[in-house]
Amino acid sequence: MSKLTDLPKRILIGRALHSNKLGETLLPKRIALPVFASDPLSSVAYAPGEVLLVLSVAGVSAYHFSPWIALAVVVLMFTVVASYRQNVHAYPSGGGDYEVANVNLGPKAGLTVASALLVDYVLTVAVSIASGIENLGSAIPFVVEHKTACAIGVIVLLTLMNLRGVRESGKLFAIPTYVFVGGVFIMIAWGAWRGLVAGDTMKAPTADYTISAEHQGLAGFALVFLLLRAFSSGCAALTGVEAISNGVPAFRKPKSKNAASTLALMGGLAVTMFCGIIALAMATKVRMAEHPATELLNNGKPVGSGYTQNPVISQVAEAVFGNGSFLFIVLAAATALVLFLAANTAYNGFPLLGSILAQDRYLPRQLHTRGDRLAFSNGIVLLAGAAAVLTYIYGADSTKLIQLYIVGVFVSFTLSQTGMVRHWNRHLRTETDPAKRRHMMRSRAINAFGAFLTGLVLVVVLLTKFTHGAWVALLGMVIFYATMTAIRKHYDRVAEEIAIDEEPGDEAVRPSRVHSIVLVSKVHKPTLRALAYAKLMRSDTLEALSISVDPAETKALRDEWHRRSIDVPLKVLDSPYREITRPIIDYVKSLRKESPRDAVSVYIPEYVVGHWYEHLLHNQSALRLKGRLLFTPGVMVTSVPWQLDSSEAAKKRARKHAEWNAPGSVRRGPVAAPKKDKKEKAATKK
Amino acid sequence: MSKLTDLPKRILIGRALHSNKLGETLLPKRIALPVFASDPLSSVAYAPGEVLLVLSVAGVSAYHFSPWIALAVVVLMFTVVASYRQNVHAYPSGGGDYEVANVNLGPKAGLTVASALLVDYVLTVAVSIASGIENLGSAIPFVVEHKTACAIGVIVLLTLMNLRGVRESGKLFAIPTYVFVGGVFIMIAWGAWRGLVAGDTMKAPTADYTISAEHQGLAGFALVFLLLRAFSSGCAALTGVEAISNGVPAFRKPKSKNAASTLALMGGLAVTMFCGIIALAMATKVRMAEHPATELLNNGKPVGSGYTQNPVISQVAEAVFGNGSFLFIVLAAATALVLFLAANTAYNGFPLLGSILAQDRYLPRQLHTRGDRLAFSNGIVLLAGAAAVLTYIYGADSTKLIQLYIVGVFVSFTLSQTGMVRHWNRHLRTETDPAKRRHMMRSRAINAFGAFLTGLVLVVVLLTKFTHGAWVALLGMVIFYATMTAIRKHYDRVAEEIAIDEEPGDEAVRPSRVHSIVLVSKVHKPTLRALAYAKLMRSDTLEALSISVDPAETKALRDEWHRRSIDVPLKVLDSPYREITRPIIDYVKSLRKESPRDAVSVYIPEYVVGHWYEHLLHNQSALRLKGRLLFTPGVMVTSVPWQLDSSEAAKKRARKHAEWNAPGSVRRGPVAAPKKDKKEKAATKK
Repeated sequence: MSKLTDLPKRILIGRALHSNKLGETLLPKRIALPVFASDPLSSVAYAPGEVLLVLSVAGVSAYHFSPWIALAVVVLMFTVVASYRQNVHAYPSGGGDYEVANVNLGPKAGLTVASALLVDYVLTVAVSIASGIENLGSAIPFVVEHKTACAIGVIVLLTLMNLRGVRESGKLFAIPTYVFVGGVFIMIAWGAWRGLVAGDTMKAPTADYTISAEHQGLAGFALVFLLLRAFSSGCAALTGVEAISNGVPAFRKPKSKNAASTLALMGGLAVTMFCGIIALAMATKVRMAEHPATELLNNGKPVGSGYTQNPVISQVAEAVFGNGSFLFIVLAAATALVLFLAANTAYNGFPLLGSILAQDRYLPRQLHTRGDRLAFSNGIVLLAGAAAVLTYIYGADSTKLIQLYIVGVFVSFTLSQTGMVRHWNRHLRTETDPAKRRHMMRSRAINAFGAFLTGLVLVVVLLTKFTHGAWVALLGMVIFYATMTAIRKHYDRVAEEIAIDEEPGDEAVRPSRVHSIVLVSKVHKPTLRALAYAKLMRSDTLEALSISVDPAETKALRDEWHRRSIDVPLKVLDSPYREITRPIIDYVKSLRKESPRDAVSVYIPEYVVGHWYEHLLHNQSALRLKGRLLFTPGVMVTSVPWQLDSSEAAKKRARKHAEWNAPGSVRRGPVAAPKKDKKEKAATKK
Repeated sequence: MSKLTDLPKRILIGRALHSNKLGETLLPKRIALPVFASDPLSSVAYAPGEVLLVLSVAGVSAYHFSPWIALAVVVLMFTVVASYRQNVHAYPSGGGDYEVANVNLGPKAGLTVASALLVDYVLTVAVSIASGIENLGSAIPFVVEHKTACAIGVIVLLTLMNLRGVRESGKLFAIPTYVFVGGVFIMIAWGAWRGLVAGDTMKAPTADYTISAEHQGLAGFALVFLLLRAFSSGCAALTGVEAISNGVPAFRKPKSKNAASTLALMGGLAVTMFCGIIALAMATKVRMAEHPATELLNNGKPVGSGYTQNPVISQVAEAVFGNGSFLFIVLAAATALVLFLAANTAYNGFPLLGSILAQDRYLPRQLHTRGDRLAFSNGIVLLAGAAAVLTYIYGADSTKLIQLYIVGVFVSFTLSQTGMVRHWNRHLRTETDPAKRRHMMRSRAINAFGAFLTGLVLVVVLLTKFTHGAWVALLGMVIFYATMTAIRKHYDRVAEEIAIDEEPGDEAVRPSRVHSIVLVSKVHKPTLRALAYAKLMRSDTLEALSISVDPAETKALRDEWHRRSIDVPLKVLDSPYREITRPIIDYVKSLRKESPRDAVSVYIPEYVVGHWYEHLLHNQSALRLKGRLLFTPGVMVTSVPWQLDSSEAAKKRARKHAEWNAPGSVRRGPVAAPKKDKKEKAATKK
């Protein structure tokens, strides 16, 4: 059956590309930076705009708060980066937030983080792609006119790329990311030179617009609340920072040190870009409104619903480079591409987290094989589906989608940092070396501050965004949490059911003899093979069993049996209703009744085929029979395969599949080292 | 996986009803008549109308041809009934048209008949239900206002009834059929008395309308063509006549005689009703137009698209009984019900024919179990789906749907009758008894005339209806034919591939020893059972194999193995990528390479679960591993089941399913007697 459901996938995706196992190379910092930083760096494409947009609720005059908000974001960014540098050192095996929370705070905290991250991955895809489309749209209007369709198109494209695998994924990330970072820095430098040195007046396309404030002259608590909301939106710049802590094993040695410096470098870049863009937006008088159609006024009149509000980064680029200029176009394209790559990181992270969760039995067991194509495929299809649904519902509007975002990130930031505090506490209890103790205490202080600050931000985010859409993200988390808890409970119940009771004699009486039955319909090669194999097994008794549905066929079978003088007795059961399954089940049951201490072994010749449709034509009766037989206690069922010529096709397919490689899979690192710090695990159990 | 796809079905259908195996009782004639005759008798509800409707193309004046057309239909009906009485006597085992054609004319003719019948079953559902809705609509206008929705609703209802099974199916057919037949006869008698004796003037609701003829004053070839087209439409009255020839085994003894008299009785009833309704329609001046909105004139003006053209039978009933009278309502309801029952006969016939075709390897093998619930379910879902699509496309318009109908019926009539001629020819070659010879020659003459007449009608139908929609039916036949041929070819190719070559020594070297491997992940009850069973089999070597994906778990496994002093050697394979399948496959392949003459037997502990979702949580890795292992030559795979407590639920479900009974399944008769006349089969092979 799996073949059947595979078909549409195969038609869409084609054969996987042959790839030189990139997963086996370690990443130098210059590649690691773009591979891990596309997500956090790309968020500077939308975060500044969101800040201005929220401030505009109180009118343009509120824009003068934006540097302060930027400052708050910068402080937060440094705190988070500093905190995760501790994680990276403490968990060189790549302990992500889930594992840090799970090990240090217990399974409930771990599962909460996991639910938050799963929701977050979905939103990373939706937000990044929506924003990418908007940036692309500032250069190519067609794209923004068909926003939802284009966004879903990009989701589909990314999904296919991931299902199919790519030849080279390191460079794929490196080039656009460096172009983007370089472009933004050139823009900031050029803008600063033009403004400060050359004294040019740079005007954003919206510089002459005014904003009809929703709440003019906001003050007191209402103003504070608005500023907090603007800050919450700005915090979108922090998403993705945690990714490096998962990816330490992918770095070259010294792994932790390299990861930590990459993290610092990334933080520095993100902060500079974020502040530079905000500063340029102020200088070029960018105007953003929450509902531009009615609130953005051109000569006192609303711009109307036909107006497209371009992202801040593109408005600034237009002011600095000039509309339609080469650099403007390049930056728009690079921004869009980096945002799509940021979305791709979720395609990597989602199934990877799924495999870790499966290992802990929160998700179906078979997903736990890392790098397994099928598990990976299911994960990304689920991720892409959820992201596409959100994109469709919210009309690919990045501003609306961002309201849902960040909740998950800060839930996992806070719990992870709290977990780290516990981690240091535990280590301090046993550590005696004063130098090490001092170092640990410093780390603990950083993590504690990180936990405090991110926790505070989480509260702010929840307060300011709950009704704006954060409830959707929370609902998603609750659903993931409940599902995973239910799965874990099921596995626990089964584990208990199948555990061996310690008192002796509790086990069912062991079978003493085995009666073998080979199912036979005709005398052909598969039957002879099944008979030969069954004979090899030297069971106590062996007989061939056939169900008579057509007297003529049965007679032919008997004659042939005789003619070939096959030395296994042939038993024929009548089946007036031409049923196959029931007579066999009844016969097996009667054998078991006769001698309840014996086991019955049933051999079924099975055809191995190469095409999905052949599954419809073969083995169906055998499969159903097997399904029913397994319900009967004391029975085992042996499939004796006969490989039809067509099975070669499936073999070749399987070989190709085995060589498949996911884009961005370099992040996972080369070896699945023992993933947990076992001592710590033991310690928490105490 | 089958469990998964089963789920929506189960939610919709619920549990099957317990039923007292009706299939095991034989039918007395008084029950057999309604069970088999609902289809042919119900067609008098639409056939007379179609005749008038086609004639109206040449204006009302052409209506005076209708008695002649009725006469032609009557002659044809008697011919067909007489012909099938020969079939019933010659094939007391219930040889349907497919088998008669297959045995006597060869597989291509058989397959053509089968394709025709399959298309016909779909159309029986679509036409009968559309007509039923129109009849119901003459009493309840709401129904006809939402024609398509109601028709599809009835299809869904019938489908659910068939999937679920019913308690009692004989009476279900008997009561509405007798009410319908009784009602029509009362109507004819009462109408005749009122018109001829009492001298009342009965007027149909459309009596005062006039018809704007499409082609006024048609003459010559055009008129002949129109009359032939009207005749073709009238032939819809003959659909379903062949059904009894399939159902002879369901009759009480003497089976053939009883079936033949039922057939004659049915023919007599159908003819009387058909003629009576045409006569009353003429007397009450019913007016029917092909496109009533524009061609039916009330006081010289078209009635417009809001007008509903009621079926002839209901217009006549209105004229005879009075609009809204009790008898009028009863007859409308009974007509609709009989038409729905007629549709239901296709629900029985379609999967039954499917099982016969599967027996001959034209359809997937597993369908060949007659009375098997799953095969039956797939068949009726396919049937209902196709009928619903046609109903939707043609807007549940019985007139449009009838254009597609009849082609299939006459293809199978013609080929079946031709086959019967061959049958008698063959028997006459060996028969010497003059009395018997005379009898056979008489039968042959009847069948020859039947073949000639039905063949002629087939040509007429094709000529007059091809562009009106018959091409759709032909296309459907071609698709069925091509698919079934392809399936048969596939099976034939496989059969050749697996046939044993007669020269000795051609077979692959038989394995001499067997190496057994028990897959182990933890020490729990299922593992111990698998080990115990594997030991029972006394293979040459036995080892337990575990894949190490987590060093701690592996160590725990080794310790437990030691502690319990399990006397089977434990081998652990490392899997750096946490893969399960590949290391096992590689290991098995290496064993095979070491000693190519040995076979490898792999034991996999498998969980037996009771709920569909549990399949997602268990055995997936095992299933995939098994799928891959079977591609490796020299390997057999044994599932050692462990029944989880939840499996009891599935067992109970299976038990209930086994007691399921399809509505109308009485038609199939109690025993699947050897279905073919083996001597004849042998004869055709010569």
